[in-house]
Amino acid sequence: MSDFMTSVEVLAAAEEALKAAEEVKFMTNNLWILIATVLVFIMHLGFACLEAGFVQKKNVVNILFKNVMIISIGLISYYAIGFNLMYPGLNEGGFFGFSGLGLTPPEGGMTASYADYTYWSDFIFQAMFAATCCTIVSGAVAERMKLMAFLLFSILFVSISYPITGFWKWGAGWLDALGFYDFAGSTIVHSVGGWGALAGLILLGPRKGKYENGKVKAIPGHSMPLATLGVFLLWFGWFGFNGGSVLSADPALVSLVFVTTSMAAVAGAMGSFLASYVLYKSFDLSMVLNGILGGLVGITASADIVSVFSSLVIGFIAGILIPLSVSFFDKLKLDDPVGATSVHLVCGIWGTLAVAIFGNLEPGVGELTDQLIGIASIGSFTFAFSFLAFFLIKKLIGIRVHPDEEQVGLDLAEHNLAAYR
Amino acid sequence: MSDFMTSVEVLAAAEEALKAAEEVKFMTNNLWILIATVLVFIMHLGFACLEAGFVQKKNVVNILFKNVMIISIGLISYYAIGFNLMYPGLNEGGFFGFSGLGLTPPEGGMTASYADYTYWSDFIFQAMFAATCCTIVSGAVAERMKLMAFLLFSILFVSISYPITGFWKWGAGWLDALGFYDFAGSTIVHSVGGWGALAGLILLGPRKGKYENGKVKAIPGHSMPLATLGVFLLWFGWFGFNGGSVLSADPALVSLVFVTTSMAAVAGAMGSFLASYVLYKSFDLSMVLNGILGGLVGITASADIVSVFSSLVIGFIAGILIPLSVSFFDKLKLDDPVGATSVHLVCGIWGTLAVAIFGNLEPGVGELTDQLIGIASIGSFTFAFSFLAFFLIKKLIGIRVHPDEEQVGLDLAEHNLAAYR
Amino acid sequence: MSDFMTSVEVLAAAEEALKAAEEVKFMTNNLWILIATVLVFIMHLGFACLEAGFVQKKNVVNILFKNVMIISIGLISYYAIGFNLMYPGLNEGGFFGFSGLGLTPPEGGMTASYADYTYWSDFIFQAMFAATCCTIVSGAVAERMKLMAFLLFSILFVSISYPITGFWKWGAGWLDALGFYDFAGSTIVHSVGGWGALAGLILLGPRKGKYENGKVKAIPGHSMPLATLGVFLLWFGWFGFNGGSVLSADPALVSLVFVTTSMAAVAGAMGSFLASYVLYKSFDLSMVLNGILGGLVGITASADIVSVFSSLVIGFIAGILIPLSVSFFDKLKLDDPVGATSVHLVCGIWGTLAVAIFGNLEPGVGELTDQLIGIASIGSFTFAFSFLAFFLIKKLIGIRVHPDEEQVGLDLAEHNLAAYR
Repeated sequence: MSDFMTSVEVLAAAEEALKAAEEVKFMTNNLWILIATVLVFIMHLGFACLEAGFVQKKNVVNILFKNVMIISIGLISYYAIGFNLMYPGLNEGGFFGFSGLGLTPPEGGMTASYADYTYWSDFIFQAMFAATCCTIVSGAVAERMKLMAFLLFSILFVSISYPITGFWKWGAGWLDALGFYDFAGSTIVHSVGGWGALAGLILLGPRKGKYENGKVKAIPGHSMPLATLGVFLLWFGWFGFNGGSVLSADPALVSLVFVTTSMAAVAGAMGSFLASYVLYKSFDLSMVLNGILGGLVGITASADIVSVFSSLVIGFIAGILIPLSVSFFDKLKLDDPVGATSVHLVCGIWGTLAVAIFGNLEPGVGELTDQLIGIASIGSFTFAFSFLAFFLIKKLIGIRVHPDEEQVGLDLAEHNLAAYR
Repeated sequence: MSDFMTSVEVLAAAEEALKAAEEVKFMTNNLWILIATVLVFIMHLGFACLEAGFVQKKNVVNILFKNVMIISIGLISYYAIGFNLMYPGLNEGGFFGFSGLGLTPPEGGMTASYADYTYWSDFIFQAMFAATCCTIVSGAVAERMKLMAFLLFSILFVSISYPITGFWKWGAGWLDALGFYDFAGSTIVHSVGGWGALAGLILLGPRKGKYENGKVKAIPGHSMPLATLGVFLLWFGWFGFNGGSVLSADPALVSLVFVTTSMAAVAGAMGSFLASYVLYKSFDLSMVLNGILGGLVGITASADIVSVFSSLVIGFIAGILIPLSVSFFDKLKLDDPVGATSVHLVCGIWGTLAVAIFGNLEPGVGELTDQLIGIASIGSFTFAFSFLAFFLIKKLIGIRVHPDEEQVGLDLAEHNLAAYR
Repeated sequence: MSDFMTSVEVLAAAEEALKAAEEVKFMTNNLWILIATVLVFIMHLGFACLEAGFVQKKNVVNILFKNVMIISIGLISYYAIGFNLMYPGLNEGGFFGFSGLGLTPPEGGMTASYADYTYWSDFIFQAMFAATCCTIVSGAVAERMKLMAFLLFSILFVSISYPITGFWKWGAGWLDALGFYDFAGSTIVHSVGGWGALAGLILLGPRKGKYENGKVKAIPGHSMPLATLGVFLLWFGWFGFNGGSVLSADPALVSLVFVTTSMAAVAGAMGSFLASYVLYKSFDLSMVLNGILGGLVGITASADIVSVFSSLVIGFIAGILIPLSVSFFDKLKLDDPVGATSVHLVCGIWGTLAVAIFGNLEPGVGELTDQLIGIASIGSFTFAFSFLAFFLIKKLIGIRVHPDEEQVGLDLAEHNLAAYR
C-alpha cells in the first residue's frame, strides 16, 4: 500500500466499511422481526391449548379444529386481501385504502419504506398478528357455534374488518394523524377480537344450563394443565408480539419492552390472585391464569413508553379487573366459556386508557381524548361489522348447533371423533 | 489527530472498521444457525407429542421412551460417525467419504469453509436434523415393534444410512454434481425417514385387528390435544429447519423461506380439509393436522426458490395427497398408526418433484430427471439398507412383540408403567 | 469528493464506520441475551409440566398454581430487593452488598459495566434465573405442603437467600475472588434450589403411605406425556440458560456451549437408561427423563470450558447418579415426588466438582478446593436459611396440610377445582 494513494481511495475504503456495518444492522433487525414472528406464531398454539383446556371434554376436538383452521384461513385471507387493505401505502390520514389483491413485493423485497426489515418479514409478522384476533372470538363462542358459521366469520373478520381499523392507526390513517397511540395493539388487536366476540355472544346466547333459575352455574374447563400450558405459551409468544412491535432490534426499546411486558404479566397474576381471594376466599387457578393474560393485554398499548413501576400498576389493575369483569358479564348473561371478553376487551380498553395515564409521550399524542376516540371508533366499527356478519350468517346457514348436538357435544356431532379415548 | 498522518494510517482505521463489521456479520449469521438449532431441537418434542397423541393409551409410555432415546442415540451416533460420513470434506462428486471417528474441529472452531458460522454450530445444527429422520420411523412402527429392535435400528440409521445419502447431495457428492436440488431435505431427511418407515412396516405387519375380513378398522389416537400440540410444535420448529437451511441470516432469503414455509403449511391444512370433506363428508382433525405436516414436508425442497403463490399450490396439493395416500397404504395393508409414510414419504417425493415444476433455478439444476434420479437413488439405497437392517435385527432378536404384549399394551409389557393414572 | 480533503476528514469517515459496527455488535449481543431470556422463561412452563406430570391427579391444580405464583412472586421479589442484593456493584470480594430497593437503571439504560447489553436485559435475564431456583423447591415438597407456607418461603428465598449467595460469585464477592468457578449455576442456581428443597423435605416429612413397614412404595406420576413435555421444554430453555450465560453472542463460546449442553443431556439419558436397566432390569421412562435433567444440571458449571468428549462423560455420570440418588434419598425416608434433590442437588454438586476435573482453566481458578469451598459455603448458608425460614413459617402458620386434606388431595382441599373432568 503506497503513501501516495489519494484521499478518494481511502475514503472509498471507509465508505465500504460503513456500508458493511449498515448491512449487518439490517440483517440483525430483520432477524429479530423473523424471530418475533415465530414467537407470535406459537401464540396460536397457546390459544388452542387455553381454549381447549377451558371447554368441556365433549367439545375439545371442535375447538382444536377451529384453531387449526383459523391460522390457515387467517394467513390466506390476509395474503389475499388483508395486508393491502391495512398497509395500502395510500390515503394517508384517511379512512380506507386498498392497493390490490395479493402481495406486491417491491423489487428485491425491500424498499426505503421498509428500512429495517424486508417486505416478506413485514408481511409474515403482520399476518401472524392478524390471525390472532380471530382466535379471541373462537374461545368466547365455543361449545355451541356451528363450525361453518365460525369459519365464514373468520374469513370476513381477517380480510376486511381487522385490516380496515388497523389501517386507521398502523397504516397511517386518520387515528394516527389524530394522535391515537396503541403500541402493539391493546385496541387494534385485542379489543377488536373482544368486540367481535361480544357480537357473537349476544347473537348466540348462553350455553344450555349456564344461567338457570337466576343462578350462574360454573362450567369448569376439562383440563387445567392444558389451560396452564396455553397461558405460558401465550406469554412466551408475547415477547415477540410486543418485542417485535418495536419493528427493529433497537437495544434500549426492545429490552424495556421485555421488562414491562413481563412485569405486567406477573402483576396481573398477583392482582387476580388477591382479588379472587378477597372476593371469593378462593385460590382460583383459572382467575390467576386469566390475570396473567389480562396484564399482558393491558401493557400491550404502552409497553414501550412506560416505566417499569407503571407496568406493575397497569398489570395489577388489569388483574383485578378480571374477576370483576367475569362477574359483570355473567350478570348480563353473556356466556363466555374462556373469559375472552374479560381478558381482551376489558383489559384491552384499560390498557389503551393507561397510555394517557402512564405514558411518557410528547403533547398531542396518546392524550385521553385521542385514546377515547380510538377505543370508541374502532370498537363501534368492529362491533357493528361483526354483529352484521354474524347476523347475515345466522340468516344464511344458522350460527348455533341443534340443542341435541350441544348436549352430546360438538366432537361427536360435528367431527365424529372423541378428543380422548 | 494531525493533518499530517499518512494515508496508510487512515487506511488502517478504515480496514479496522471493515473487519469489525465482518465480525459482527459472522456473529449474527452464527446466532441464527444456533437459534435455528433450538427450533429444530423442539421438533423432537413435536414428534413425541404427535406420535403419543396418535397411538392408543396403552402404548404411550413406549412411544415417549423411544422418542427420548432417539434424540440421545441420534446425537451420539452422529457425533461418533455420522457427521464425518456426511461431511467428510473428501471425495467431491463421489459416493462415499469418511474423515474418521468423532469430531475434528479446525483450529479456533472455524475455517474458510465455514465462512458464516462456527464448526460447532454446523455440527449441532446438522445433528438435530439427523435425529429427526429416525423419529419419522418410530411413529410408523408404533404399537408393536420391540423397543430394543427399534433402538438398534436407530443407531444404524443415523450413523450410516442417513449420512451416506446425505453426503451424496449436501456433502458435495455425486447427486450434487449432477444437479439434484433439495433445499432443506424433502428427500434427504423426510422421504429418507419415510423409506425407513416403509421397510419397517412391511417386515413388521399391521397391528392386530387393523385389517380384518377385508375391512379397515380405524384405531383413533388416544389424545387429540397432544397430537395438535405436536403439529404446532413441528411447524414452530420448521421455521428453524427451513429458515436455518439458508445457512446464514441473509435477510432476503430467510424472510422468503418463512413466508413460503408458512403458506405451504396453511395451504396443506386447506387441501386436507377440502379433500376430507369432499371424499368423506367429515371435518377430520387428524387429516387436517397431517395436511399441515404434508404442506411443510412438500415445501421443504424448494422453500428458497419458489414464489409465494407457488408455495400455496405446493402445500395445497400436498394436503390433498394426505387422505388419498392414507387410503392407498391401507389398501396395501401397510398399517401406519400416525400416517408418517403419507406425510414424509409421499409428500417428500411430491416436494422434490415440485422443485422441477415451480423452482426458479438456472438450467441444469433441479430439472425433472435430476430430481427423479435423486428420489430413486436415495430411496432405493435407504429402503434396501433399512430392509436389510430390520431383517437382520429380526433374525437376531426379533422385531415384533408377542401378541399378548401387543394386546395388553407395550407400556405395561415393556415398561411396567401406565401413561396416566 | 475532492482529492484535497484532509486526512482528518477521511479519518472521521473511518471512525463513523467503526462506531456503526460497534453499535450493531451491541445490538446483536443484546438481542441474544433477550432471546436467551425468552428461553429461560419457558423453563417455568417446563417445571410446571414436569412437576404436574409427576404428582398424583388429585394435586395437579395445586402444583400448577404454585408454579404460576412462583414466577410472579419471583420476578417481583427480584425486582424489589433481589437484583440490587446480588449485583450491588459494591463490596467487591465481600460477603454482602445492597444498593437499595427497586431498580436503579443508569442513564440511557446502559453503562460501561454493561458493555454487551442493556441494564434492562441484564435485569430480566437474571430475574428469570432467580425464579427458577424456587421452582426446584416446589416439586420436592409437592402433594403435602400448604400453599401459603410455600408462597411465603418463595418470597424469602428469591429476595434474600438466592441473591446473597449469588453475589458471592456472580456479584464479584468473596467466592469469585477465591477462584470458585460456576459458569451458569450448577451450584449457584441448581444446588441452591436443591438445598432449599432438602430443608423443606426434612421439616415436612414424607407423604402418607410412602414409607410403610420398612418398604418404599412407588407413587407414580399421573401423566407421563406431561412429564416428558416438561423435560423437553426444560432442555429447550437450557439453551438460553447456558447459552445466555456467555453474556454475549460470542460465536465460538455460544456454539461450544450449545454442543456441550446437548451432549451432556443425551449422555445423561444414556447413563440413566443403562443404570436403570442394569440395576432394575427396567426401561424406566421417569429415570431417563431425570437423567436428561441430571446431565443438563451437571454440565451447567462447566459448559464453556470443557471438551465435547468431557461433556459426554460429565452427563453420563450424572445420568448414572440419578437412580442411585433416588434410592439413597428413599433410604433416608426423604420423600421427593419429582426427584428434584437428585437432579438439582446431587448433579449440581457433581457438576461443580467436574469443573476441577475436566475444566480447561488457568491455575488458581476452579481448582478442587475452590470448588469444595464454594459448594460447602453456599450449601450450608442456603440450607440453614431455608431450614430456619421453613421452621419459622411452621411455627407461624404451619407448613403441612391436614391429613384429611392430603388424603382427598390439595386440588379439592385448597382450590375446590379438579384438574380434569
